[in-house]
Amino acid sequence: MYRYGKLPYNQLKEILSKLSREDKSVILGPAIGEDAALVDLGESILVVHADPITGAEKDIGWLSIHVAANDIATRGIRPRWLLSVILLPERSDDKLLNEIIDQIKRAADEIDATIIGGHTEITPGLDRPIIITTAIGEGRKENVLTTAGARPGDKIILTKGAGIEGTAILASELYDKLVGKVEEDVLERAKLFMREISVVKDAMIAVKVGGVHAMHDPTEGGVLGGLQEMAMASNLGIYVEEEKIPVRRETEIICRTLGVDYLKLISSGTLLISVDPLKARDIVSELRKEGIDASIIGQFREEKERVVLRKDGSKVDLNVPIIDELWTILSIS
Amino acid sequence: MYRYGKLPYNQLKEILSKLSREDKSVILGPAIGEDAALVDLGESILVVHADPITGAEKDIGWLSIHVAANDIATRGIRPRWLLSVILLPERSDDKLLNEIIDQIKRAADEIDATIIGGHTEITPGLDRPIIITTAIGEGRKENVLTTAGARPGDKIILTKGAGIEGTAILASELYDKLVGKVEEDVLERAKLFMREISVVKDAMIAVKVGGVHAMHDPTEGGVLGGLQEMAMASNLGIYVEEEKIPVRRETEIICRTLGVDYLKLISSGTLLISVDPLKARDIVSELRKEGIDASIIGQFREEKERVVLRKDGSKVDLNVPIIDELWTILSIS
Repeated sequence: MYRYGKLPYNQLKEILSKLSREDKSVILGPAIGEDAALVDLGESILVVHADPITGAEKDIGWLSIHVAANDIATRGIRPRWLLSVILLPERSDDKLLNEIIDQIKRAADEIDATIIGGHTEITPGLDRPIIITTAIGEGRKENVLTTAGARPGDKIILTKGAGIEGTAILASELYDKLVGKVEEDVLERAKLFMREISVVKDAMIAVKVGGVHAMHDPTEGGVLGGLQEMAMASNLGIYVEEEKIPVRRETEIICRTLGVDYLKLISSGTLLISVDPLKARDIVSELRKEGIDASIIGQFREEKERVVLRKDGSKVDLNVPIIDELWTILSIS
Repeated sequence: MYRYGKLPYNQLKEILSKLSREDKSVILGPAIGEDAALVDLGESILVVHADPITGAEKDIGWLSIHVAANDIATRGIRPRWLLSVILLPERSDDKLLNEIIDQIKRAADEIDATIIGGHTEITPGLDRPIIITTAIGEGRKENVLTTAGARPGDKIILTKGAGIEGTAILASELYDKLVGKVEEDVLERAKLFMREISVVKDAMIAVKVGGVHAMHDPTEGGVLGGLQEMAMASNLGIYVEEEKIPVRRETEIICRTLGVDYLKLISSGTLLISVDPLKARDIVSELRKEGIDASIIGQFREEKERVVLRKDGSKVDLNVPIIDELWTILSIS
């Protein structure tokens, strides 16, 4: 588990309004639900995002690069340049720092991006490392997407599977609790889902095919939270059917065992793509050709209703806030 | 005091070599002694720098903006866009966050820059806030300076005064120790030196006049450390006379009382400018006209000797590592 303590919506809104400032170069500044800032450079657009990893020990360097880079990729732009600030606890040995550096380098190589700067220091009072990565991309104005860009009639594509990140976290954190009830090789495979946390490849394939209007990676609140954020940002209605959403067997088994709703389970690595209906099939087949599972799960529409039809026939109203299941299950387990 | 635990030179060098990567767009990636990364965007150059503030309580938001922005300005480029990641301790009240946000906004306004993004969260295990700010500027290729850009014959200009930041820190941290020996109004004025920590105005005035080849803000190691870094990066000799270096009365009194060498005292807010000798006088008078004290203190030269002539006639060899006096005096006091 590695993301804590987001601020309440209203407090965040107040902060953002305080920080806002007249600046014609800033196309998109701090905004709730938007993934990265957009700066107008005249010839091109700069896409910038900074994100901390404060709660992970394992793979923290690797994770930090991918988490920051994902928010550039969902803009339809390749993340190219990275800066990582590494804060180490006192009495850290060289081994920890070397591991982190190796992870950062590996993750950057995986997405073909370059570390251009950063800072490393021993920070008194920390009991674990903290890493903050800033990711930067640059692209042409007409290619930059926002979470708010979905259009009525767009098909919605989901990649990989619902709740994959949460599945991996549950398999790791609750291993001892799960191990009698779930086959060990299911748990081992589930843990490996963490390796798929980058959506850079998914996003770059989609924009290469074309017709993409908006993308979003569903973190807290899972797939339902992600769909809600896209619908709200675009001010559109939405209709999605659960039975069309790809869910991996490992996710199904682990979530059933723990009584967790995988549609409300943190799901970095999954990409939601809002796309021209004429291009949706092409994107799905191109993603599958590249080894990334993908399905059309629903569509955005003019009518204001925001609904996910569950397999049991019930409807989820996406106008109601979605609480991620991960924190609940971890805190009671 | 707010900068801890820089890594040893050799360890840092090893890290940087691990992270390096063939990328034609990266003009200047991670490098020791260089202040900000440079990315070639074709039409222009992007200047990016990220810095954490991990040890301050007071003014941490304000400080974080200026410290990060300074490293863009020393490139000769105006810092325009900022992202701040704010990590708050558990049980922080809204007051702390509001103060930080107000400080960030105020500092950004002071240098006419815009907050374009960031992240705020409650981070378990912290006993104080930590802020990491990424600063970004953009400029034409021919206007971008590096620490390594000084040329033989360049005059060296120093702004404000040697050790001003350290003076302010000593006046605050050792107030009780100093108060019997130094007049209180001297200490109060010294504390206010912290307000002058931005070098953005200094740097922008200098580049506007023209002829500037390199700039650097001397942080740890003070003025001597800063001169050393410029000389080493440019692979030049240097000759500076102490009696030409502006030192404020408050700095002189406090340093004399504590037995501290103000030339080795951390000095953010001071700008070192390496400039065409024909332009040096113009820059000094323009800075003074704008209320910023400045003097020509020496020059870079072909001969490899690197010397600062002290007032007592002794010579400091700048090929020997400079240890900042601040940590020593604070740890024994």
